[in-house]
Amino acid sequence: MADKNTVASLAELLAPYAERTEAGLERWLVEPGTPGTLAEAMRYCVLGAGKRLRPGLVWLAAEAVGDRPGRDELLARAAVAVELVHCYSLVHDDLPAMDDDLLRRGRPTAHAEFGEAMAVLVGDALLTRAFGVLAEADAGDAPAAAAVTRVLAQASGPAGMIAGQVADMGLCELPGGLEGVQYIHLRKTAALVRAAAEMGALCGGADGRRIAAVRLWAERLGLVYQSVDDLLDATGSAEQLGKTPGKDAGAGKRSALAELGRERLGARIDTLSQRAVEAVEPLGDRAGKLRELTALLARRTH
Amino acid sequence: MADKNTVASLAELLAPYAERTEAGLERWLVEPGTPGTLAEAMRYCVLGAGKRLRPGLVWLAAEAVGDRPGRDELLARAAVAVELVHCYSLVHDDLPAMDDDLLRRGRPTAHAEFGEAMAVLVGDALLTRAFGVLAEADAGDAPAAAAVTRVLAQASGPAGMIAGQVADMGLCELPGGLEGVQYIHLRKTAALVRAAAEMGALCGGADGRRIAAVRLWAERLGLVYQSVDDLLDATGSAEQLGKTPGKDAGAGKRSALAELGRERLGARIDTLSQRAVEAVEPLGDRAGKLRELTALLARRTH
Repeated sequence: MADKNTVASLAELLAPYAERTEAGLERWLVEPGTPGTLAEAMRYCVLGAGKRLRPGLVWLAAEAVGDRPGRDELLARAAVAVELVHCYSLVHDDLPAMDDDLLRRGRPTAHAEFGEAMAVLVGDALLTRAFGVLAEADAGDAPAAAAVTRVLAQASGPAGMIAGQVADMGLCELPGGLEGVQYIHLRKTAALVRAAAEMGALCGGADGRRIAAVRLWAERLGLVYQSVDDLLDATGSAEQLGKTPGKDAGAGKRSALAELGRERLGARIDTLSQRAVEAVEPLGDRAGKLRELTALLARRTH
Repeated sequence: MADKNTVASLAELLAPYAERTEAGLERWLVEPGTPGTLAEAMRYCVLGAGKRLRPGLVWLAAEAVGDRPGRDELLARAAVAVELVHCYSLVHDDLPAMDDDLLRRGRPTAHAEFGEAMAVLVGDALLTRAFGVLAEADAGDAPAAAAVTRVLAQASGPAGMIAGQVADMGLCELPGGLEGVQYIHLRKTAALVRAAAEMGALCGGADGRRIAAVRLWAERLGLVYQSVDDLLDATGSAEQLGKTPGKDAGAGKRSALAELGRERLGARIDTLSQRAVEAVEPLGDRAGKLRELTALLARRTH
């Protein structure tokens, strides 16, 4: 798995993309006419925090399939839209009626800071802006933008991320054991991770075979990510994680750790990482950063 | 204001469009893979209830500017998307942290029926589906679909409907008197009403002058609608309204009725209706139904 130009850390690999994401968010987050208090709350929930993993995947996937020139702005919009959807989901998931969390990204959650009504509205605002940012793409990019929007809407919608949260909250029936946990992981986390990569590949003008490779890689990467999350929830500190550890176990939530135990979960993370890397073999050398990212996510500690 | 073929009631005028809306909702509301409990809650919040005023405006506006053939499906998608956004906003506005309402369209509100967590998620699901339904339009319609989506995202976003709810909840500063009430009405209600008509005009292939006429008509119509709502909140029964009357006054919310009193509000509704009708004079005979609708909404009793 060793590549030339190996980077030392996740932050280092994601840094150039995180910078572009930040610039895009600054540019597109707040529309003129937004009330000041709402704009402030939106900025609080989005800017200057988070690893920007998902928007990073948009650019990484586009690079891995071969860049099509002239789509830079659509790529930037896709990256911003994915991050906005991610941020909205955190705000709503943290609500008292949901996971009732007070700490997120090392700061008070939206409802702890601005009250519950504003938190609901900020989440709604971020979700709506995500689709607005894509709809504002250049007219010449309209067909590609529509394809990107379809992928995002499906991944974040009632058969994707929302289904994952419904299941995680115990609001629908689930199979027992690891199968039920996998149902949650695939939808709550892997769906948006996969969508991010697919959106990047679409902007990059990839053919069906390469889109499929990137999709499969990202879905497995999403499972790696969430499995490590389950592990860290049991072992990390609030300072390391930026959120309250042990909450999921305390709330009786189903997790891969509870199903497998630490040792077997570690082995599963290794297997999933390996299978993720296998998925992008058809992309050859261009997939170097995707392989690196896989390894870095598998061994992350926060 | 008398037109040939004058219809007796609002329901009668909207009926043919409501039927198409219902068919579109049945077709596009629930994606495969949606958990059964979530699908059930989505159907509860959307199907078989409401006047379907906003989707009706999509078709009425398209007819009034002159139909462009071949956009029937995009029109149907636009109508469904507008209704989904309207339904999501009702579900979230009714939440305990917001208006804390238990009755809507003559039935228990979403959180009263399915719990608060599911109500948040159903609202999120409906909003996401709205944009998904538009993104799934035929590729040939992509530029028109993007224009329609931009209008919807802006009207329902943080400078539109969400700003209206922020203001209505007292979460931002507002000018005093009627000006503050007008700020709320324009965003909370008129923005989506105007967007519906504009989306229809865009699908109908209208030029800028006719789009502007329809927009202005619909914005004034939205103000008529909300002003009548304020009046009915003070005079209607729960049975007539399908929601709890007197709630807004009880919650100390700002309303046109509180600012103006019954008589002056009645006069304002007449003036706004007249100005709405004036706005579509450039459309001539084609605007007959728009004039009728204006009169019917001004004198509605529920």
